[in-house]
Amino acid sequence: MKKNIEHISMLGAGLVGSLLSIYLAKRGYHVKIYEKRPDMRKTGAAQGRSINLALSDRGWKAIKEVGAYNDIANISIPMKGRLMHDEDGKLTFQSYGKEDQAIYSVSRGRLNEVLIDIAEKEGVEIIFNANCTDINLKTAEFSAGIGNDSNEEIIRSDFLIGADGAFSAIRDAMQRSDRFNYQQFYLEHGYKELTIPPTKNGDFAMEPNALHIWPRGQFMLIALPNMDKSFTCTLFFPFEGEHSFSSLNNESKLLDFFNATFKDAVPLMPNLVEDYFENPTSSLVTVRCYPWVKEKALIIGDAAHAIVPFYGQGMNCGFEDCQIFNKMMSEYGDNWTEFLPAFQQSRKPDADAISELALKNFIEMRDKVADTNFLLRKEIESRLHEAFPDRWVPLYSMVTFTDAPYAKALEMGIRQQSIMDEIMKDPEISEKWQYLNFEEIVNKLDKN
Amino acid sequence: MKKNIEHISMLGAGLVGSLLSIYLAKRGYHVKIYEKRPDMRKTGAAQGRSINLALSDRGWKAIKEVGAYNDIANISIPMKGRLMHDEDGKLTFQSYGKEDQAIYSVSRGRLNEVLIDIAEKEGVEIIFNANCTDINLKTAEFSAGIGNDSNEEIIRSDFLIGADGAFSAIRDAMQRSDRFNYQQFYLEHGYKELTIPPTKNGDFAMEPNALHIWPRGQFMLIALPNMDKSFTCTLFFPFEGEHSFSSLNNESKLLDFFNATFKDAVPLMPNLVEDYFENPTSSLVTVRCYPWVKEKALIIGDAAHAIVPFYGQGMNCGFEDCQIFNKMMSEYGDNWTEFLPAFQQSRKPDADAISELALKNFIEMRDKVADTNFLLRKEIESRLHEAFPDRWVPLYSMVTFTDAPYAKALEMGIRQQSIMDEIMKDPEISEKWQYLNFEEIVNKLDKN
Repeated sequence: MKKNIEHISMLGAGLVGSLLSIYLAKRGYHVKIYEKRPDMRKTGAAQGRSINLALSDRGWKAIKEVGAYNDIANISIPMKGRLMHDEDGKLTFQSYGKEDQAIYSVSRGRLNEVLIDIAEKEGVEIIFNANCTDINLKTAEFSAGIGNDSNEEIIRSDFLIGADGAFSAIRDAMQRSDRFNYQQFYLEHGYKELTIPPTKNGDFAMEPNALHIWPRGQFMLIALPNMDKSFTCTLFFPFEGEHSFSSLNNESKLLDFFNATFKDAVPLMPNLVEDYFENPTSSLVTVRCYPWVKEKALIIGDAAHAIVPFYGQGMNCGFEDCQIFNKMMSEYGDNWTEFLPAFQQSRKPDADAISELALKNFIEMRDKVADTNFLLRKEIESRLHEAFPDRWVPLYSMVTFTDAPYAKALEMGIRQQSIMDEIMKDPEISEKWQYLNFEEIVNKLDKN
Repeated sequence: MKKNIEHISMLGAGLVGSLLSIYLAKRGYHVKIYEKRPDMRKTGAAQGRSINLALSDRGWKAIKEVGAYNDIANISIPMKGRLMHDEDGKLTFQSYGKEDQAIYSVSRGRLNEVLIDIAEKEGVEIIFNANCTDINLKTAEFSAGIGNDSNEEIIRSDFLIGADGAFSAIRDAMQRSDRFNYQQFYLEHGYKELTIPPTKNGDFAMEPNALHIWPRGQFMLIALPNMDKSFTCTLFFPFEGEHSFSSLNNESKLLDFFNATFKDAVPLMPNLVEDYFENPTSSLVTVRCYPWVKEKALIIGDAAHAIVPFYGQGMNCGFEDCQIFNKMMSEYGDNWTEFLPAFQQSRKPDADAISELALKNFIEMRDKVADTNFLLRKEIESRLHEAFPDRWVPLYSMVTFTDAPYAKALEMGIRQQSIMDEIMKDPEISEKWQYLNFEEIVNKLDKN
């Protein structure tokens, strides 16, 4: 094994950091992770953070590679499609893919604990409560203060990896160096977590094998199932304006609004008022930057490309970063000098693509899914997929159920969209669509 | 006077900071400026920084308002147009505007000294060698260490203003707060300063009343006159690639390249080799962000909107910020609570517009100005302007010789461009253009 690097310091023992450390340890590297939070296995998961996530194929692929499949499969709940709740509580189901395809609701905290356990078994050392400052990209040195100890230690190693999330300290050091392109922007919407507890009989209060959506145009409520038979709900809502976090500022306004807007959900949410006024309102940031490698440091996952959650791909993309990192590392015989530029060049367009797709999908989820024309469009696309399973794969399926590069999926999605736009222009399409020549439609994909 | 604010701390005594402090002092505010560099009046201007700038109408307007006109007029040199040097040293002149219009070459250092002198006369206190850290936007407090003194003082006042340039510490604090949109990106080109000294007889070595350009497609050299009859030249050149700062890495490569590319300039540059290898290579950054006001702090000038130098508007835009700041402050009766949101909302689209125009003008300067078709296009536009002086004002003139909002200039420029594109499509335009119906052309501006 040809190595220019042996000892690696990583910042962040979150999902991506702990997964990547397993890959690196299995390749023979000595990895120490510095995590600013306490050990969640002792304290319980951080409060107020998004506590369930949707695992899809890209994430599973990495989880299987590091041997965590059984542990994670045991704590995840399949969601086979979207279950839309309209203003009257009427439900419409839209399947995500084929009969046997699903995305999986999983607890962020439990998933992280499983990965940290495996990392430690592989020899990774994790230092919790570590406050890292004075990061020097040229020397790979930084200062770490542990817990309340006021003594700071200088940490030295061969290389730094920043898996320290959307507000990465290593990326911050990069931003201060010359010629680092960087962008952060926030949506006008924020989010707040609410809860639907189990029923008195200890059952799920709604269908568990679906992602529930209350799409309402400019905003939406969603709910994902948990292993304890509760649902974690997330309200995505504007910060300011007529209907917003700032306007819903007392109990009666809140209840009036929820009763009018999410009627069928209110009886399932006995703690609505406490949840709403006690849980934090969080913002939604997109971060894009380049390069991801500067001197003796690399950023990965959210640190390199934080995205909004609307395609359910933030974690899956970060896990795929690690999986591709490992695959390319093998191809480059662990030659970091050649590997690092190749990795960032190959991965950046895919990160940009999923970032764009995630922003677009917010509009689809909160608005279009409630539209009958949109549902028909999805229906036609799924029939095209049935008839030509390899040639017409709907964009959502490419992203969620394949490992096609995100950039290719985005490009193909744009072509599909222009073909479907043409088809949907026909005012009588709802009667005529079954008589369309599917082969002719699929052939158009190759033409543009 | 209704005031919520009396004592203001400002970071940065550069061009924009010192100008704004004069406006504020004249309005009766107590302003202290903390400047990280030493007092340039004692040490001479900072080395390696772009040392001459082009003042145009927006800049002059502010300079006149604060009573600095005579001082600055005495140290500035009019440049009436671009003087293009082709590969054989052949010259082509293209006037910037009408006969009496010009932009003015002025030394950054001298201009700054004049403004600092006026500021101090108006009662502004300037603390040099100040290292400011731990900026608290909520309380408007920060720590300042002065010179080599290791004691830090906590500075308190009613409000903070960041006029601390493209790498602003106050903006940095804003970026760490929630919901601050931020973008920085670098060109693939950098720049390096070179010099054409006066001739042995003590004269200018070239025509002084012009901005000299050696446009060469992917890169260019420019030269601006100085009061001491030298020219400051700036080479805008790619960092990497076939012809780049990294490829011109020894004396013989440098001289071969300059002799082949800037033949007529080389004999005028006796210090070319020393200048090239001793002067720093600097990068070109664009910064966009919003909001400009967070809690008890405002950013202004380059701190809020650093732009590339190719429209000669960086300083002019910063000065116009201050001039508009003062005008709006009067309109709002010094009510900061109402003034601050109004100022940022009104000014942001103009900052975005000049940022975009500056990026586009690099391509025009380095490439298109050498094109005969482009020169003909400019000629037709200047005739349109002569015939309809109020209705067809060429984009360059709107930006440089009027105070029309940049966003309106950009919008009008786009309309003009589409009309001119249509006209220039005619393959025989070079013979036919004098017979065009100018009124019909100008009427098209109102139609779109």
